[in-house]
Amino acid sequence: MLFDLPAIADLSDSALTQRLQAALDHKTKPLGALGRLEALALRIGQILGSERPRLEAPQMLVCAGDHGLAARGVSAYPSDVTWQMVENFLAGGAAVSVLARQHGLALTVVDCGVARAFAPRAARPGQPQLVLKSVAPGTTDASVGPAMTEAQCAQALANGREVVRSLPGNALLLGEMGIGNTSVASLLLARLCGVPLEQGIGAGTGLDAAGLARKRAVLQQALQANAGATTPLQALAALGGFEVATLTGAVLQAAAERRVIVVDGFITSAAVLVASALAPQVLQRCVFAHRSGEPGHTRMLAHLQAEPLLDLGLRLGEGSGAALAWPLLESACALLRDMASFASAGVAQQGS
Amino acid sequence: MLFDLPAIADLSDSALTQRLQAALDHKTKPLGALGRLEALALRIGQILGSERPRLEAPQMLVCAGDHGLAARGVSAYPSDVTWQMVENFLAGGAAVSVLARQHGLALTVVDCGVARAFAPRAARPGQPQLVLKSVAPGTTDASVGPAMTEAQCAQALANGREVVRSLPGNALLLGEMGIGNTSVASLLLARLCGVPLEQGIGAGTGLDAAGLARKRAVLQQALQANAGATTPLQALAALGGFEVATLTGAVLQAAAERRVIVVDGFITSAAVLVASALAPQVLQRCVFAHRSGEPGHTRMLAHLQAEPLLDLGLRLGEGSGAALAWPLLESACALLRDMASFASAGVAQQGS
Repeated sequence: MLFDLPAIADLSDSALTQRLQAALDHKTKPLGALGRLEALALRIGQILGSERPRLEAPQMLVCAGDHGLAARGVSAYPSDVTWQMVENFLAGGAAVSVLARQHGLALTVVDCGVARAFAPRAARPGQPQLVLKSVAPGTTDASVGPAMTEAQCAQALANGREVVRSLPGNALLLGEMGIGNTSVASLLLARLCGVPLEQGIGAGTGLDAAGLARKRAVLQQALQANAGATTPLQALAALGGFEVATLTGAVLQAAAERRVIVVDGFITSAAVLVASALAPQVLQRCVFAHRSGEPGHTRMLAHLQAEPLLDLGLRLGEGSGAALAWPLLESACALLRDMASFASAGVAQQGS
Repeated sequence: MLFDLPAIADLSDSALTQRLQAALDHKTKPLGALGRLEALALRIGQILGSERPRLEAPQMLVCAGDHGLAARGVSAYPSDVTWQMVENFLAGGAAVSVLARQHGLALTVVDCGVARAFAPRAARPGQPQLVLKSVAPGTTDASVGPAMTEAQCAQALANGREVVRSLPGNALLLGEMGIGNTSVASLLLARLCGVPLEQGIGAGTGLDAAGLARKRAVLQQALQANAGATTPLQALAALGGFEVATLTGAVLQAAAERRVIVVDGFITSAAVLVASALAPQVLQRCVFAHRSGEPGHTRMLAHLQAEPLLDLGLRLGEGSGAALAWPLLESACALLRDMASFASAGVAQQGS
């Protein structure tokens, strides 16, 4: 596949890591008492290359696309809900819209390949923006052949890189919308991590038992119809979706630019799975926001050796979990920057 | 004990609950897809008696006190660190100071009985305030007799009520500072919940194995020396601390006023334990912010049938966990107030 993989440096810097750890250890608190906030502060410091990291102009990037598989009844909702929800994101009524406003996250929604076309609209400062990067009006049904051609997949990857290049700031929050895309995540989990479908699928937006059985059968067909797609990029093209491929490109670009990447749930984790299979250093830049209620996500997180910040039974997507976790990243940075040390505050240390 | 228990109404209101649940169910998301955020929104709506709840003028109340037990070596830090950390809270350098600034929480620190006296200082708008409500310069060593007299305990309870009455807003976040106070929480857990000391104590601010063995032995002595203190108020006086008793009064007052009460970790949960033993409806007003790394907290949460929002291995106290969880409460309210319904957004519902 003709895809230009950006150079992604190894961030391991033991001198900086030691300085960050020393700074945390001298803060006015017992050693390690801020628990996982300390590891989070350390990670953000490493990504941004600073002992006093500051998150700037955070961008919530919501990628949307439709899926040929949806016609096979793998979702509780009709495909057109993808289009309807994008309009809802832009109108400000969706969960991610509300949370982005709450936390001052600039919201960009990308049409990566939604079945119904959007009218172009003028960007208004401070309002959500729609970026038109549709590769095609939905993928092909993966249960009968590849969801995308290699050229389409390469185009979506390049689109993701280009969109991120156009956005300011040093933090990227990942979101998505696409009726049927938990199926895509389950397929990529099965193919790239070897997790059996039975362990990697769930009810998505609300399938009943019969719907779940149908989903399993359809996904089994998709794996068989694309048995030869075994490399990460082949699997992405054959089993993925336009929004997942665009997100994969976005993750690679953000990693190359040393942005902090805040991963939402099952579908955005699937994009990180593909990106990290291409360039493992991607994971050094990732903060996993939450553990989804979708069972495959726990298997995927285990594969990525990721421990998410929140575990609230969310299964909405959109970037809602990433937005909910965002203040914890801000807190980690503020604590690292602004807490006093024992010496500066005149507080006695342990055992003194 | 002469203590004026405020009237705390039962908030169960099935009509409001049904309206809140219906509002959540009609938001543009699959049923239940916001997971525990939905239960949180429902609870806050119930407490504030509104389908469009809005949190106003949130108050972080940090109660500080010293403990006679500390002289027995139950903590890794000397008692004077209580005083030093209060100065650090007020100077803005502690974790709770940083987090309160981040989230716009007004910070009030109460000297409930710190060993070293504080100079009174003028309140400055927008700055942390110190409230002087010291019952005595530290409790008596509970391993040889009651930590407080009944009159002292009643005074601390009344102080907590009075402080809350003086604060604006409809949400109270609980914090504390007191070298030795994980011992107090473990003692109350043992006495009021019947949890054996071995299961209810931990390293606190950082005891080693020998220190932990010493702590266990000292706490065993305290339970024996106060074997007759079996009611909640008797146990609070005999085994508690001035900050825990003041917090207990604060919780009762906040509950009576239908404020949202955000519970921090092990020590503030101990205050809620006592308050809810006196008036079970207190728990209807509580949101448990996090699960502490201190093992006794998990036992206490189980007794209170509470499921905290965060589980980040925090063991700092101060109210730091309550402050970290605060944006989730704001999010729950914003989602309930501001998300579109399927009808208003023109989005197709499940199965349609």
